[in-house]
Amino acid sequence: MIRDLTDDEARAALPLKWELPDVVPAWVAEMDYAQAEPITEALVDAVRRGALGYPPHGDDLGAAFSGFAARHWGWDVPAGASVATGGVVSGIRLALEVLCPPGPVVVPMPCYPPFVHAVEVTGREVVPIELDPESDDAGLDLAAVSRAFAAGARTLLLCNPHNPLGHVPSRGELAGLAALAREYDARVITDEIHAPLTLPGATFTPYLSLDDRAVLVTSPSKAFNMPATHGAQLVVLDPADRARLEAAPIPAQNTWSSLGVVAGTVAWRDCDDWLAALVERLAEQRALLAELLADRLPKARMRPLEATYLAWLDLRAYGVDDPAAAALAHGVRLAPGQDYQPGLTGHVRLNLATSADRLERIVEGLRTALDDGGSGAPRG
Amino acid sequence: MIRDLTDDEARAALPLKWELPDVVPAWVAEMDYAQAEPITEALVDAVRRGALGYPPHGDDLGAAFSGFAARHWGWDVPAGASVATGGVVSGIRLALEVLCPPGPVVVPMPCYPPFVHAVEVTGREVVPIELDPESDDAGLDLAAVSRAFAAGARTLLLCNPHNPLGHVPSRGELAGLAALAREYDARVITDEIHAPLTLPGATFTPYLSLDDRAVLVTSPSKAFNMPATHGAQLVVLDPADRARLEAAPIPAQNTWSSLGVVAGTVAWRDCDDWLAALVERLAEQRALLAELLADRLPKARMRPLEATYLAWLDLRAYGVDDPAAAALAHGVRLAPGQDYQPGLTGHVRLNLATSADRLERIVEGLRTALDDGGSGAPRG
Ligand SMILES: Cc1ncc(COP(=O)(O)O)c(C=O)c1O
Ligand SMILES: Cc1ncc(COP(=O)(O)O)c(C=O)c1O
Repeated sequence: MIRDLTDDEARAALPLKWELPDVVPAWVAEMDYAQAEPITEALVDAVRRGALGYPPHGDDLGAAFSGFAARHWGWDVPAGASVATGGVVSGIRLALEVLCPPGPVVVPMPCYPPFVHAVEVTGREVVPIELDPESDDAGLDLAAVSRAFAAGARTLLLCNPHNPLGHVPSRGELAGLAALAREYDARVITDEIHAPLTLPGATFTPYLSLDDRAVLVTSPSKAFNMPATHGAQLVVLDPADRARLEAAPIPAQNTWSSLGVVAGTVAWRDCDDWLAALVERLAEQRALLAELLADRLPKARMRPLEATYLAWLDLRAYGVDDPAAAALAHGVRLAPGQDYQPGLTGHVRLNLATSADRLERIVEGLRTALDDGGSGAPRG
Repeated sequence: MIRDLTDDEARAALPLKWELPDVVPAWVAEMDYAQAEPITEALVDAVRRGALGYPPHGDDLGAAFSGFAARHWGWDVPAGASVATGGVVSGIRLALEVLCPPGPVVVPMPCYPPFVHAVEVTGREVVPIELDPESDDAGLDLAAVSRAFAAGARTLLLCNPHNPLGHVPSRGELAGLAALAREYDARVITDEIHAPLTLPGATFTPYLSLDDRAVLVTSPSKAFNMPATHGAQLVVLDPADRARLEAAPIPAQNTWSSLGVVAGTVAWRDCDDWLAALVERLAEQRALLAELLADRLPKARMRPLEATYLAWLDLRAYGVDDPAAAALAHGVRLAPGQDYQPGLTGHVRLNLATSADRLERIVEGLRTALDDGGSGAPRG
């Protein structure tokens, strides 16, 4: 059910990921798999019937999401709780501008870089909470969160599950955060775009099920491999908060696209089988990556990959400050760790959502680069 | 070549415009015509090859626009001058945030309402320049612009051609504005989304051809009837300004969608024949509307419709303050004039891009409503 794209197909479908010739890409979060058939068919239908106009007031996205949440997470969320928006990142900005008081915003690090930018464009200060790379615990440092709230922050950006760490916060961890949010009357904005990609062994908990004042920002775009279709949503339980979001003028709203809403509705509603096959496939890729690393890069430390297809690798044992730059010189493009936590050395994020063969080439390229001491001179 | 959509087709294609049952819609700016065939085919192709991923750095939109500008307006604009963005309104916001100093922004009224919102979300003050509804001249009041610049404004939002007035500013008018902008070192942001819809009898002048510091924001979405596809562009001639726009972080950028870029590129490049047929058809509709008004609403004053398919009607002679509300009670939805200029009474904007038959029903509904004195009690 999951069809691998050939190099040529992938280059045509994912021009950003594959922009460099003769490089195997494992950086940006896109999968080298064909999208689900129901999405293709719904989009073709929509294009043929000319559905390129403004989307209706009150669309089907909320109902479709609500069905998905009930089936997958046993979470009851009203269909009317969703407010469509263009993308997750712009949705975070909108939530900050419309629902959050001015003042510092806590951002656990490493983080998806636009988190920092979303805070900065709203004129707010980022309060980073850094993960100690030595620690085996990738969970939230609740003591540090408490200190940040005590010092005046009233907003926190949560990534649940976490990109780039691959961590799925436990229910207990999230309950601890919710208790702090209640204590300090702080608002959590939770980005759950990776939730459908929770892998076997982990259990995803919707943060809103523990903290009804939080703002959920999500989109089917990541799990269903259609990153730039523009049909994301904010989910907000309080009708007054929702009314404030809906009253935001168009320039703040980054309005969604009709085709994005069509694709998103079908993704949440009609693609469970494809998603199950995808998750199984990603679990296989995860096992393959573990094997390849054990065999070829035994000193690599990979965080337990509980969700997403983005593995976080600590390669400091190889003594190369910027392993992504080194790998690029050997034809493999990884995401540099320092993009996610400024100043961090020796880390990369590796995208394993590709063919088995390409994954092997990716690890092999990285091995060659590190063996080379990162000098950047390609061998042979 | 221009195919009218049936009511059922239009309802399926344009769910916002047609959202009210049993109402003939002539409000929001969408056309009841099938989109151009090359756009349909390019989108279907893109969907089938899975091109739902992030768009490439450096796309074809700029080159396609540049070809269009040369063929249609004899204007030479470098392909590299375009920066893709999500939509025109969010592009205006981006230009304000990134390229314009804080301070008041001149907005000629009436205006497309998001102009005001775009200024407000950036925390700036709107300096309206109101059109006297008695005046036959729909042109910019340059004396008022000069006073506003003298009083400290350093930015002006231009709509060229104008929505809702249908006015195409003359070269002289634009040159006058450019001279003032130079004198006061002010920046003009020019929205030229309606330029391809310049009708026979008028000549469109690209404002950037007279003022190389201006920011052009445009999109093929209006002329090619694909409002929510998210493939707009900013056109900026100074490379340093362009670099500032390109450096804006993702949350400020409201990134464009891949399918929007595909559709936009084809629209600028391969749809000249369709556009020529459309403009001819709109000129016919304009003639039909003039006839219908002369016949049934002889006291209506319609501004010369030089571009767009949006006619601006002064109906004050009928003594109804809110003719759009009155018409709605008679099954016709028009855009209320006061949405474009707060406080204005007796005006509507009428969208004539529909079938001849529906246009007749629209005028007839309006006539009945006005005859009724706007009491809102539908006859029969
Ligand atoms: C955590 C997270 N949020 C948001 C996004 C992007 O969302 P959007 O493109 O809808 O802004 C990504 C993309 O990889 C992501 O990893
Ligand atoms: C003058 C003008 N600018 C912009 C727009 C909308 O552009 P976008 O949807 O790309 O923001 C419209 C839509 O009618 C318009 O009339």
